Amino acid sequence: MLPERVGRLMQLLGRLPGVGEKTAQRFALFLVGDAELCQKLGKELGELSDLVRPCERCGNVAEVDATGHAVCAICSDSRRDQALLCVVARVQDLLAIERSGAMRGRYFVLGRLLSPLDGIGPAELPILALLERIATDGVREVIVATPPSVDGEATALLIARELSTSGVKMSRIASGVPHGGDLEYADQITLGRAIDGRRALEPR
Amino acid sequence: MLPERVGRLMQLLGRLPGVGEKTAQRFALFLVGDAELCQKLGKELGELSDLVRPCERCGNVAEVDATGHAVCAICSDSRRDQALLCVVARVQDLLAIERSGAMRGRYFVLGRLLSPLDGIGPAELPILALLERIATDGVREVIVATPPSVDGEATALLIARELSTSGVKMSRIASGVPHGGDLEYADQITLGRAIDGRRALEPR
Repeated sequence: MLPERVGRLMQLLGRLPGVGEKTAQRFALFLVGDAELCQKLGKELGELSDLVRPCERCGNVAEVDATGHAVCAICSDSRRDQALLCVVARVQDLLAIERSGAMRGRYFVLGRLLSPLDGIGPAELPILALLERIATDGVREVIVATPPSVDGEATALLIARELSTSGVKMSRIASGVPHGGDLEYADQITLGRAIDGRRALEPR
Repeated sequence: MLPERVGRLMQLLGRLPGVGEKTAQRFALFLVGDAELCQKLGKELGELSDLVRPCERCGNVAEVDATGHAVCAICSDSRRDQALLCVVARVQDLLAIERSGAMRGRYFVLGRLLSPLDGIGPAELPILALLERIATDGVREVIVATPPSVDGEATALLIARELSTSGVKMSRIASGVPHGGDLEYADQITLGRAIDGRRALEPR
C-alpha cells in the first residue's frame, strides 16, 4: 500500500539494531513528513563512511586522517599506558569505562561475544588480531571487561585460554552487588559472585 | 569522547519518534561499523523528500508526479466513494484500516490529536483543511476513527462540534471488547463502552 521507495527505506531502517517492522514503518512515515530531517540525515549518512570508521588498532570510533588511516583518539594518545589493554565487547562498553575514568591503558573492541546459538564460534572472534596487538604494543596486562553474562563469561574463558601462552598477566573485572545496590533485591548469582569474589578487609 | 560528526548524527537520529539518547548512540555506532548500510540509507534519505511527500489532499504517503504534485493512490482512485470520508490520526491508522478492507471511501489524516499538555490545542489541528475537503468532494458521511484514548475522544468531540453545521452525517468507530478478547481480562472502561455501545440482537 506504500510507495516502493518507502518500502525500501523501511527495509534499510529495519537493519538497525532492535528495530522491527513496525518501528521501521514508524520511522519511515515520520521521515516522509519531515523533509528537513530527511535531507540532513541523508547528507550526514552519505558523508559518514568516508570520514569516520572503526579504529584500525582497537575498533573504537575514529576519524579518517589525511593519509586515509583511522586511528582513534585513545590509540593515538601517547600518555596512555601501552602495556595495559582492556578487552571489551562493544564501543558502548568502552565509552562507559572511559566515563568512569578508571582505565589508564588502551582498549581492544571485540565487536561480538561467543554465542553458539547465533552461530558465533571462536573463529568469528578477532583473537588473532588481539594476539597481534599484544605483541606489537608489548602489552603486559590484559583486563577482560566483557559483560558478566553467559556469553560474556564464555568469551572471557576463551580469551584466557588463547592468551595463556602469551605470558601476559590477565584479569577479569569484578562482578558483585553494584554500588548503592540492595542485597535483599540482588539475584542469587550476583550474591554468589559477591561472596566468591570477596576481598580481604584490612584495618587502617 | 566521540567525533563531532558522530555526535551530530546522534542528535538527528534522536529526533526520530521514540528514540532517546542511548538508542541514538546505538544506531550511530552500528552505522559507523556498517559502511554499506550507511551509504544506502544516506542515498535513500537524500532522494526521498523530492520523490515522496504527504498527499496534498489527505496526508497519506504519496509519490510526487511529473507536475510536482503529490496525490496518493487512494485519493486518485476513482472507484473509491468520494462522499464517504474517514478521519484518522496517523498514516499508520489509515494503513491498518486499509488492511481490514472495511473502508470503501477516502481518508483524511489529522497528523496529530488534541493534547493540551503537549501544547496541541484546536488551532493546531487541520480543521479548516478538513472542512474544505468536505466541501470540495461533496462528502456526505464522516467516520471519525481517532483512537479510543483520552486525546482521541477529545479530538472526536472537537470534530463533531466543528462539523455540526456542515450538514454531514457523522459517526464514531465502535469501542468495546476486541475480537477474540476475554471479558475477564478487559478493563472497566472497555467493558463500560461495550455495554453502552450494545446493538440490537435480532433473530434471523
